[in-house]
Amino acid sequence: MSAPKRILILGATGSIGIQALDVVAASEDLAVVGLSAQSSWEPLVAAARAHAVTRIAVTDEGSAQRAAAAWPGGTVLAGAQGLVELIVESGADLVLNAIVGSAGLGPTIVTLGEGLDLALANKESLVVGGELVTTLAEATGARILPVDSEHAALHQLIAGERAAGPGTIERLTVTASGGPFRGYSASRLATVTVDQALSHPTWSMGDKITIDSATLMNKGLEVIEAHHLFGIPYARIDVLVHPQSIVHGMVTLCDGGVLAHLGCPDMRVPIAYALHHPERAELAVQRLDLAAIGSLTFEQPDLDAFPALRLAREAAVAGGTAPCVLNAANEVAVHAFLARQISFPRIAAVIEGALDELGSEPLGEFEALFEADRRAREVARSALA
Amino acid sequence: MSAPKRILILGATGSIGIQALDVVAASEDLAVVGLSAQSSWEPLVAAARAHAVTRIAVTDEGSAQRAAAAWPGGTVLAGAQGLVELIVESGADLVLNAIVGSAGLGPTIVTLGEGLDLALANKESLVVGGELVTTLAEATGARILPVDSEHAALHQLIAGERAAGPGTIERLTVTASGGPFRGYSASRLATVTVDQALSHPTWSMGDKITIDSATLMNKGLEVIEAHHLFGIPYARIDVLVHPQSIVHGMVTLCDGGVLAHLGCPDMRVPIAYALHHPERAELAVQRLDLAAIGSLTFEQPDLDAFPALRLAREAAVAGGTAPCVLNAANEVAVHAFLARQISFPRIAAVIEGALDELGSEPLGEFEALFEADRRAREVARSALA
Repeated sequence: MSAPKRILILGATGSIGIQALDVVAASEDLAVVGLSAQSSWEPLVAAARAHAVTRIAVTDEGSAQRAAAAWPGGTVLAGAQGLVELIVESGADLVLNAIVGSAGLGPTIVTLGEGLDLALANKESLVVGGELVTTLAEATGARILPVDSEHAALHQLIAGERAAGPGTIERLTVTASGGPFRGYSASRLATVTVDQALSHPTWSMGDKITIDSATLMNKGLEVIEAHHLFGIPYARIDVLVHPQSIVHGMVTLCDGGVLAHLGCPDMRVPIAYALHHPERAELAVQRLDLAAIGSLTFEQPDLDAFPALRLAREAAVAGGTAPCVLNAANEVAVHAFLARQISFPRIAAVIEGALDELGSEPLGEFEALFEADRRAREVARSALA
Repeated sequence: MSAPKRILILGATGSIGIQALDVVAASEDLAVVGLSAQSSWEPLVAAARAHAVTRIAVTDEGSAQRAAAAWPGGTVLAGAQGLVELIVESGADLVLNAIVGSAGLGPTIVTLGEGLDLALANKESLVVGGELVTTLAEATGARILPVDSEHAALHQLIAGERAAGPGTIERLTVTASGGPFRGYSASRLATVTVDQALSHPTWSMGDKITIDSATLMNKGLEVIEAHHLFGIPYARIDVLVHPQSIVHGMVTLCDGGVLAHLGCPDMRVPIAYALHHPERAELAVQRLDLAAIGSLTFEQPDLDAFPALRLAREAAVAGGTAPCVLNAANEVAVHAFLARQISFPRIAAVIEGALDELGSEPLGEFEALFEADRRAREVARSALA
């Protein structure tokens, strides 16, 4: 038996991080060598103890101090610099970046810069970082393995197919549950509430991503991710609404065949895929029973009622800083909606306003992204007033 | 540009043969080097002229003579020996066996014995020949590429997956349209007519296979084929009724993921897959539009109403000569049904009677198959009286 693969988990106390710890615990081929969190130091220390981890990083300095005081047996690295140190000195074979939001971009850059393989659950790294992130990975030879159901689906379908030669892949399809407001008209969407938006039909996720799922912005961001991960032009990446969330992704081939990845919605499947890649390990999750499900349905997304998907595609095609502006303005608008400050349709309006005002600027280095992110948040916040 | 792949087409005047000629004509990477037919010499000579083929074989001696007289510019090989000669001296890179029925077994054995890759549209070669055929292929290093939508689907899903290591494939699912009598009770099936049985909802095929599709025997034979092609135990091969015939096959992986192959029903897709393998070539067929289709449905097959599927599984598990008996008795019974001699439910009864009477005998050589085939036809015919 070979030595277990050494996994570093960033954002270990969130939903993906916790499920990743489950996946690691269930396999003799994987071992955790480090954990990080933003400020939730108590569950982080508990997880470190449970998984025999001796080094953790806590970004919030005060929380890091409390963790160190409560856990004299372990090493607690503090602040942004502590997180960098955790990555660089981890000796990990694979870093899982499950940090939420644009705070995940920095750790992605550090990981890939070190030439470490990256299991990427942080959407923003590719949405915002795009070409810079993939160029960095190519330069250092690090691999990016997507950790969400749609891109993990596409990754394995494409991995099997690339061997048949270039030009065999005609289109990618990212499926969307359609969210809780599928079928609603634009006028009906004007009066929906936060509680309605948070009741997602098929996936249990954090609040921010659940709202993104309700606006379809989530699928817009996923189209941008898919473009960067797989190098397919935007015009050949489709979004298809599929309320049952059983088909996670599809690849149309040049011979008219379509390969699809299906399964019961369970994030442990894509997590395990990324952690074990290129192996595939047994996983005790519910098996798909299509006869019991009976019917899978499909429909086109309604771009009039859900303009966020259109805005994402426009920002994606514009390129440069536009996807970064899109993402930052969306974060501000979604948090304002969750705080009951703006209506549901205003989310897209705030994003559109920021894109109109800031446009797209060329992108030469990562610093330009942080500046574009800052300005987009300013513009979006002033639009809330 | 490399030289085109040289293709020999056996059974060139049938549905698969004609569509294969279309696929070859549409590609600069393929060339036909020979054609055969049982007795339809006129369309065969016309096809030879259209595709600049100079050697053909006609199994029926009288038809061969007429072909030779009508086509002085070409070489016409006659009889079973002529067909063997065509295969052995073809210089083909790949032989497509699209011969209908158990007459296809001999040419399969000759092709694989010569170490030639085989695109196999002749179900009976594997149903009847089973282990002997796959053992022969292994011994000579020839590859068997399935030419029907279900097994071509499974082949490409498995081909991409085998790289991830042994033990990753948990189950195979062969989909079934369910035929024209899906949902019928056993008592209602007692009165169905030949014309009703011949109106298949999604695939246009020959009469024999259309009846096999109505009884579900077709899926029973496909389960046996899948077992031999992919080396998966019968207990891990499922049949799932899917009336739209859009999903052609599925592979359940050890991590709970399911890979599927979808597409509009069009036999040119699996034909092109087999002819071009391991390349994948562009094909101008209708692209799948799931939003336009709207819904895909799935249900368990009804083994009480359709006992042929159960009989096929029992014969498969018994092994030896039993699948050969199953196939031969089914051919006799289906032809009797088509000739209005017996009712629809009698097809399964005749098969069951033959299996009960002849049982399963061990199988050491191909000759035993021809003997089992002969005896099964005798028993089945006497049951018709």
